Amino acid sequence: MSNNTQNTTHLTDEQRIDWLRLIRSDNVGPRTFRSLVNHFGSARAALERLPDLAQRGGASRRPRICSEQDAEAEIEASRDIGVSLVAPTEPFYPPRLAPIDDAPPLLGVRGALEVLARPMIAIVGSRNASGAGLKFTERLARDLGDAGFVIASGLARGIDQAAHRASLDSGTMAVLAGGHDRIYPAEHEDLLRAMLRSGAAISEMPLGHVPRARDFPRRNRLISGVALGVVVVEAAHRSGSLITARIAAEQGREVFAVPGSPLDPRAAGTNDLIKQGATLTTEAADVINAVAPIMERPVELPTREPEGPPSYDEPGNSDRTRIVGLLGPSPIGLDDLIRMAGASPAVVRTVLLELELAGRLERHGGGLVSLI
Amino acid sequence: MSNNTQNTTHLTDEQRIDWLRLIRSDNVGPRTFRSLVNHFGSARAALERLPDLAQRGGASRRPRICSEQDAEAEIEASRDIGVSLVAPTEPFYPPRLAPIDDAPPLLGVRGALEVLARPMIAIVGSRNASGAGLKFTERLARDLGDAGFVIASGLARGIDQAAHRASLDSGTMAVLAGGHDRIYPAEHEDLLRAMLRSGAAISEMPLGHVPRARDFPRRNRLISGVALGVVVVEAAHRSGSLITARIAAEQGREVFAVPGSPLDPRAAGTNDLIKQGATLTTEAADVINAVAPIMERPVELPTREPEGPPSYDEPGNSDRTRIVGLLGPSPIGLDDLIRMAGASPAVVRTVLLELELAGRLERHGGGLVSLI
Repeated sequence: MSNNTQNTTHLTDEQRIDWLRLIRSDNVGPRTFRSLVNHFGSARAALERLPDLAQRGGASRRPRICSEQDAEAEIEASRDIGVSLVAPTEPFYPPRLAPIDDAPPLLGVRGALEVLARPMIAIVGSRNASGAGLKFTERLARDLGDAGFVIASGLARGIDQAAHRASLDSGTMAVLAGGHDRIYPAEHEDLLRAMLRSGAAISEMPLGHVPRARDFPRRNRLISGVALGVVVVEAAHRSGSLITARIAAEQGREVFAVPGSPLDPRAAGTNDLIKQGATLTTEAADVINAVAPIMERPVELPTREPEGPPSYDEPGNSDRTRIVGLLGPSPIGLDDLIRMAGASPAVVRTVLLELELAGRLERHGGGLVSLI
Repeated sequence: MSNNTQNTTHLTDEQRIDWLRLIRSDNVGPRTFRSLVNHFGSARAALERLPDLAQRGGASRRPRICSEQDAEAEIEASRDIGVSLVAPTEPFYPPRLAPIDDAPPLLGVRGALEVLARPMIAIVGSRNASGAGLKFTERLARDLGDAGFVIASGLARGIDQAAHRASLDSGTMAVLAGGHDRIYPAEHEDLLRAMLRSGAAISEMPLGHVPRARDFPRRNRLISGVALGVVVVEAAHRSGSLITARIAAEQGREVFAVPGSPLDPRAAGTNDLIKQGATLTTEAADVINAVAPIMERPVELPTREPEGPPSYDEPGNSDRTRIVGLLGPSPIGLDDLIRMAGASPAVVRTVLLELELAGRLERHGGGLVSLI
């Protein structure tokens, strides 16, 4: 199954509505979605158990569950503006994104969707970029575009904008932090329109969602997730691009950084990245040479909705009490928790799901969890 | 013998004259000097054999041998301007330089000689430096000086000059390509004078030697040789500083490079060095952290003049013919040559010495030799 086009499994219309309802319900993020579907065998079965699970997890009030009507309305409104909601197993879901731990179960995709299947390189950097940074970004995006790569970025001012503009003809993709109808910054609506002619935009957020500050780091995992590698062109200390670089490394993506003078604060972050092991990048060949061997490797098959429900251990009250007692605000590994709880992995996972749906559990990636 | 001060062995006045005569004679470089002394047990014995060896090596004319009077005159004239000629086993010979393969058998040292025993960092870069490059150099040299390092450089315009100036108080050392009385560029005579108050200058060249283009790469091995590491601040493609960096790596020195924008041609060489493995350097701590573990290691004992003559195999004419036949303009390893010649290592080494003294052999370092 090394070829992505062979992996495609289509959702039925009913499944798509169930999936959308589940991911749009309270306290259900991509990881919880995956746990629930793995546990209960389908999104439909999970939706039925949701209120009960949240109550057992100690929810103070009944969690809001997205209604069938709301899901249908979102699908229809999306279609009206040319947005399809696609699952990881479906065509036009970016193939590199599908296998990641917290891949959106449904991704809103829009534009010339064929670009989504092509190999991508993300280019990110300061909004407040220097002239040299912008010029270098244009050159790099053009050269990578000429080499066949689609350029992914975040549609922000500065480096993002320069990267998108320079790849308008060769293939470009915007990863949005808000809904497809809530473009940020608004002044880039024209740019996005130009991009959609032969490029694309993706978002995991519902229509109408205005991006808040906390949505940008979350969105950044998609920028690196779709790509073979991420190039950081300019970044001051503690800038958002460095978060993208960190996530990219966690996702196993190649991290590239463009060097600059030690006296240039906009190069402080990129020089640090290189010190930490990022590939020093002065030309497209640096990127192309590094990702060439990765492109040969097959993309892993994403998790799909299983055929029937898996075995499922009902936790007793004493299990629940013991497991909650072991949890605290410091993240702990799932394996440690299972060992210390002396319960079956299935029981521990169910209790965690209950807590999560009650809004009491945070998942940190790398299998770490903590109480909120 | 981990402490350098314990290694000191003084030459007698007669030995110093013999050493100077030998190293100032035709076709005798530091490596040949070492071979000769190892072969014949002393510089004096080597001097006696020189004409005979050169003749057997096929010299077209008798090589010029430095006379006792000339050697005495050089020692005296040097003393008059405050220059001492010191051997690798003597005090004030830079301890890191002494063990290298082609360390000068006698080094002219001048100034506040105590700095020569302190740990050194070389800073090199473009003569045609940018304002940012000069500013960074000053900061780096000052910070490394504050941390106790002596700054070694080449007294050139640009980066070298900035590095020396910024370390006038903390300790600085110039490595000259010409004789101590032939300062290049002449406009830096004042700078050198200021440096000698609490810093030093070294040269392996005789007084009166005006530096030629080919002397600078040769001199560069001393800049890296005296230092724990070499920082290249700005360097275009194919610049002299990159030669210093290459030699530094061959000598096992740490190589540091200061990054810059890919659009800045003065950063092309340093960015390339980082791609090849040099340590990206934006502050003194990058250098200090990298050399700290090396400073703990003892400096190897330099080769000293052996007590008596080593065993010495006289080559036959057939050995000579066979060995010369195996040599050509492409460098070949000494080990391979010994194997292919089917002669004893001592015989092969002797034939090579003869060829060298006849001006027919070039040694390339790494044990490689070729016919001229």
